[in-house]
Amino acid sequence: MTNLHRHAPLRVALVGLGTVGGGVIRVLETNADLIARRAGCPIQIVAISARDRTKDRGVDLSPYEWVDDMTTLATRDDIDVVVELIGGADGPALTLARQCLTVGKPFVTANKAMLAHHGLDLATLAEKGGVALKYEAAVAGGIPVIKGMREGAAANEISRVYGILNGTCNYILTTMEKAGRGFAEVLKEAQELGYAEADPSFDIDGVDAAHKLSILASLAFGTELDFPNVAVTGIRHVIAADIAEAAVLGYRIRLVGMAENGPEGLFQRVHPMLVPLDHPLAHVDGSLNAVVVEGNFVGRLFFEGRGAGDGPTASAVVADLIDVARDEYGDAFAMPVAALTAQRPADPGDRVGRSYLRFKVQDRPGVLAEIAAATRDAGVSIESMMQRGANQADGVLVAIVTHSGAERCIQDTLDRLAGSDSLLERPMVMHILD
Amino acid sequence: MTNLHRHAPLRVALVGLGTVGGGVIRVLETNADLIARRAGCPIQIVAISARDRTKDRGVDLSPYEWVDDMTTLATRDDIDVVVELIGGADGPALTLARQCLTVGKPFVTANKAMLAHHGLDLATLAEKGGVALKYEAAVAGGIPVIKGMREGAAANEISRVYGILNGTCNYILTTMEKAGRGFAEVLKEAQELGYAEADPSFDIDGVDAAHKLSILASLAFGTELDFPNVAVTGIRHVIAADIAEAAVLGYRIRLVGMAENGPEGLFQRVHPMLVPLDHPLAHVDGSLNAVVVEGNFVGRLFFEGRGAGDGPTASAVVADLIDVARDEYGDAFAMPVAALTAQRPADPGDRVGRSYLRFKVQDRPGVLAEIAAATRDAGVSIESMMQRGANQADGVLVAIVTHSGAERCIQDTLDRLAGSDSLLERPMVMHILD
Repeated sequence: MTNLHRHAPLRVALVGLGTVGGGVIRVLETNADLIARRAGCPIQIVAISARDRTKDRGVDLSPYEWVDDMTTLATRDDIDVVVELIGGADGPALTLARQCLTVGKPFVTANKAMLAHHGLDLATLAEKGGVALKYEAAVAGGIPVIKGMREGAAANEISRVYGILNGTCNYILTTMEKAGRGFAEVLKEAQELGYAEADPSFDIDGVDAAHKLSILASLAFGTELDFPNVAVTGIRHVIAADIAEAAVLGYRIRLVGMAENGPEGLFQRVHPMLVPLDHPLAHVDGSLNAVVVEGNFVGRLFFEGRGAGDGPTASAVVADLIDVARDEYGDAFAMPVAALTAQRPADPGDRVGRSYLRFKVQDRPGVLAEIAAATRDAGVSIESMMQRGANQADGVLVAIVTHSGAERCIQDTLDRLAGSDSLLERPMVMHILD
Repeated sequence: MTNLHRHAPLRVALVGLGTVGGGVIRVLETNADLIARRAGCPIQIVAISARDRTKDRGVDLSPYEWVDDMTTLATRDDIDVVVELIGGADGPALTLARQCLTVGKPFVTANKAMLAHHGLDLATLAEKGGVALKYEAAVAGGIPVIKGMREGAAANEISRVYGILNGTCNYILTTMEKAGRGFAEVLKEAQELGYAEADPSFDIDGVDAAHKLSILASLAFGTELDFPNVAVTGIRHVIAADIAEAAVLGYRIRLVGMAENGPEGLFQRVHPMLVPLDHPLAHVDGSLNAVVVEGNFVGRLFFEGRGAGDGPTASAVVADLIDVARDEYGDAFAMPVAALTAQRPADPGDRVGRSYLRFKVQDRPGVLAEIAAATRDAGVSIESMMQRGANQADGVLVAIVTHSGAERCIQDTLDRLAGSDSLLERPMVMHILD
């Protein structure tokens, strides 16, 4: 097929040789011929760099030049594009990105933290240099959702983008659901299986999903990246009884990152939600990811696939390299940075919808009345109220589903109950996806 | 935002002003500012053409120059791209496409029939002229699945692509399923509601889905388009009892277009299948479309959305225009035409899988034994066999689910029973999606 190649090989420097880095090497080796046909030229790794040269990574690195000082890569004429898989919002990844983009070296990354914090700056550098900044792997792993938003849905005004953006959380929630088990137990098992990190807080507290959401929001709405204004609630406080109660009501619980844009501002939130069974997100199980985009002409688009792992993530990295080889790329955030609007954050109190509230309370007369009075005084209209587990020494659970109303009234309810000694735990609030 | 536009407006000629043509006008008018920001320039319709100038299309056409002779469009210097929404495999659409691509005019189309029949020729012309041939709207309407395959999954060797590619069939099947009603009755209603054409055969006999499948197969496997070798069975012979029986067994019936590639050749088939409830295609309801791609690194990708209608289809057409404006496009079938391989068709008899067979038979002794003997002699292993509706004057139904085996044995079973006067109707065979 060599005669069909239109260009000289695309020469890649790969920085960071963890799971995904190894995956990129395997993809480029295994599918070399096919990729060359699709890209119009072979895509060849010519240099690699990582912190520790001696570590066994399960891939033969001997064909590739090892580079100790990655800062030399940006200016090397024999390298056409740098792939950064180090991770971390700042530090060496950011230094490398700035170096490459400043000197006009195309840059491919899977680094959502860096993009969430520095995406606009990097896009500005890329724009000045007229150079590719690509990051398909940064959101939802192998699912081509950056491309889907940036290009596929580009004709639409997008009102809402939301999805399941963290496979670890989804694995934990769906395992809790299927097995009726508690959070701590399932988390421990997920750690043993390698589905959760030793320090899981980035995932389970929603920070990773928030990084990704801020990127999706910018692409969807043509707004400046605004990670600091993503409200984040993780899944630590979801208990088995919440999942059981939701099931009775016809919902499943998923950690949903959701962004909306409108006259009232930009709303961005990562939080566990009750998802109705007839919504496709309710059927996204295990470590899968999924993204929903709602556009004013296309309607609802739904993308599902593997959001993590070496194969899927490497698939997205190499898709970016193919775009670079094909010379099919443009503005990193779908339009020039100067065309992005600085949207103010919306007040979540203004949001209208239904909510689920769960209280753990003393099992004594008057507690239900106290909660009911608080909701009444806060202007919350109750659709259903359930009490489970009467006569238990460690308290009983009271679950409420509200009618549609402003979220500020939910907060007001909690404020009214804040001092009460009837409550044994901090109440749990989850909004319902409609 | 005018100062942010990098280019002069992209000037569009729109040919064909049916539902989708009107949709394109509405998208470009409604989302003009947003589209200009994303495209880097305004996208403006400057000329329109259709058969009948006097017809009321519910859109104000007065801002646009009416062109009677569309053959003049290809060579006009004040037109940057031609959008073809006439339809039809041959005739004026094909003439226009050839004219445009020959003289180097970018061409955007939603015409799956034309692409299925002449895609390679047109791609060759586009390649010679170094000009865009774009067709996102031709497959699965608003779902960016052409982009998803051509670019998003480009790093993968794809083993299989399949999906629900015709909304009319899916509407009919899911309505039959929900209401327990018969095919003819639901088809009639779909026609009254405008979900099915007056002459519905293109849809319900699977031809439309086959056009789309042949395009997906070429993109997925890097093989030459081979529409003539798509085996097609429509949904006319699916009866309510099939759907009920499938439900008992844990399946839903969907018209699935499926293509696989391997050493044994290229397999392409459109046919009603039994889809297990835990597969995402089982939850694709109504007129939605969905496509599944299975790649060797990305795993399974699932795309769902609206596959028809003016808004979704126009959304895809305008996405193509934005790609053209951005100068982000390349080979129509993901690689140079000469790099596509001419794959021989696979023998479906070699395929191994499970099947559902349904017979309508005389209600008399010995019939079950006759069918069982035929399956035995053909080497088909039976997983379950059910007889329903005993003592009915118009016969009884016998449904069989087989164990996994070669499809040639199923055909052999039917051949053995072909002459039997026990059978009151042609048997129905549906394969099971695994």
